[in-house]
Amino acid sequence: MDTKLTKLLNITYPLFQGGMAWISDARLAAAVSIAGGAGIIAAGGRDANYVREQIRLAKQLTNKPFGVNVQLMADNKDEIIEVICEEKPTFVTLGAGNPIPYFEKFSKAGILKIPVVPNAKLAKRVEDSGADALVIEGMEAGGHIGVLTTMALMTQVIPLVTIPVIVGGGIADGRGMAAALVMGAAGVQLGTRFLVAEECGVHPHVKAALLAAGDTDTVVTGLVGGHGVRCLKNTFSEKYLVMERIGVSQGELDKLATGTNRLAAIEGDVVNGAVLAGQSLLPLKQVEPANVIVERIISEVKQILLDAPGMVK
Amino acid sequence: MDTKLTKLLNITYPLFQGGMAWISDARLAAAVSIAGGAGIIAAGGRDANYVREQIRLAKQLTNKPFGVNVQLMADNKDEIIEVICEEKPTFVTLGAGNPIPYFEKFSKAGILKIPVVPNAKLAKRVEDSGADALVIEGMEAGGHIGVLTTMALMTQVIPLVTIPVIVGGGIADGRGMAAALVMGAAGVQLGTRFLVAEECGVHPHVKAALLAAGDTDTVVTGLVGGHGVRCLKNTFSEKYLVMERIGVSQGELDKLATGTNRLAAIEGDVVNGAVLAGQSLLPLKQVEPANVIVERIISEVKQILLDAPGMVK
Repeated sequence: MDTKLTKLLNITYPLFQGGMAWISDARLAAAVSIAGGAGIIAAGGRDANYVREQIRLAKQLTNKPFGVNVQLMADNKDEIIEVICEEKPTFVTLGAGNPIPYFEKFSKAGILKIPVVPNAKLAKRVEDSGADALVIEGMEAGGHIGVLTTMALMTQVIPLVTIPVIVGGGIADGRGMAAALVMGAAGVQLGTRFLVAEECGVHPHVKAALLAAGDTDTVVTGLVGGHGVRCLKNTFSEKYLVMERIGVSQGELDKLATGTNRLAAIEGDVVNGAVLAGQSLLPLKQVEPANVIVERIISEVKQILLDAPGMVK
Repeated sequence: MDTKLTKLLNITYPLFQGGMAWISDARLAAAVSIAGGAGIIAAGGRDANYVREQIRLAKQLTNKPFGVNVQLMADNKDEIIEVICEEKPTFVTLGAGNPIPYFEKFSKAGILKIPVVPNAKLAKRVEDSGADALVIEGMEAGGHIGVLTTMALMTQVIPLVTIPVIVGGGIADGRGMAAALVMGAAGVQLGTRFLVAEECGVHPHVKAALLAAGDTDTVVTGLVGGHGVRCLKNTFSEKYLVMERIGVSQGELDKLATGTNRLAAIEGDVVNGAVLAGQSLLPLKQVEPANVIVERIISEVKQILLDAPGMVK
């Protein structure tokens, strides 16, 4: 399955495991890369030493390409970018801030630059500034989200750029991946789907909560303030939404949210923690190895695309 | 292009023009049906006489199948349903309320029942209750919206039911239609795309505003109260959002919104009226006949699906 993305990264399948703060580490990233996709270590919420250690560990686990996700709003972003440039993963994905000022530094280190962009205008801008590929992620995704959906982004961004476009948000099976490819995407990114991978280190309570959840079980906190975060409905998110609705200050809301990602992901408190998750939860049926997830998706895609001409008989 | 939907309705292409209150009338619906899709007359905001007159007019304009969209929250819904059962369009789409109590009445009149459903559970329920097909519409659509996106709905609803599924929301070109078909949809529904059809009677100021708008130019009013409506950013929507944010009562918000659909669609006030529109606005380039829009989309779909096996070489 050759696309502009498989050629750019020298990977077998155009399928990223999305970077998930506090969760996606060397073990998960390496498992996805070994399976033929490209795993991503999340730097969000971590210190530079952790990032160095995880890149080194992933290189011990596999010689396949993998990436690191950097949140550009993080206070320690410069330190983390320094470490990444020293340790040289194949690529970085760059979100939550303007990625362009960092392009030159990554290029000099030989690292491919793949920003996450929220709309058509910024897609053009990062392409013109030398991005090697870009990610568009619809608001059906888990965690920090924008306002455009996956379908709206695919419709409007893909025709505007020539660099490979990777699509994330709501894609959880081979049908979604096939849909993205026929729209002209060069690849897809799945986050939530890999939360129930065997190699994913998220707390087992989180895996159990995700397996029990359905299509209507997420909400978006922070919409009013323009910083939406999609997570499971639970005591934490309901409390946040009530406080938001009655007009509590952003400072108080931030205080309420601080530490809640870690509380769910690491401590396993799925009641008072923020369980970040996308809308497409029904396809999550069981915990299974990353390579089983990848192989099932790819075999679905192949079958669907081979059958496609039958639709226009 | 045969799908379960083309067979059910005896139409050439599995493509609906979505019902748009105050806008989609016999002229637009007939134009889309003559082009090989299926047009839909919107009953929303209208009285029963208007609906009767429009169904009769559409039957004069074409002998092809067309439908009527009924908003089940309307005060005069019973009267409108009575008229529809007398005048017998091929099908109805049913939104904004529980459609099941009306199924028997429509069945007796020989009218196909196609409810719009917001999630997987209700999709199963309408299928079990005898719906002939169903529409899923993502929150990237214009007008009244739910919370799930097109990708999340396609991923989770299509595998659950055996009746034809029609997908709307954010689809504006042949790529989007091809994507829906490869996901297993039996057809698509486009609303905003047909607002710039020559045969669409919406005010020319609305057409001009839509042609000038891009991917980030819509907002959702009424999210806080759980009744989201997607429309263009303008003086009306900005005012509504500010009032919503400062916690004004639902009664006052409703008063602010009353008459604003008509004000934009009929009077052409695109500053103080509500210009309902979906997120995928960049593909709208010019006003052109409905059959040109339909033919371009269908020819794109055919090309894409015939090329698809090349992606898995």
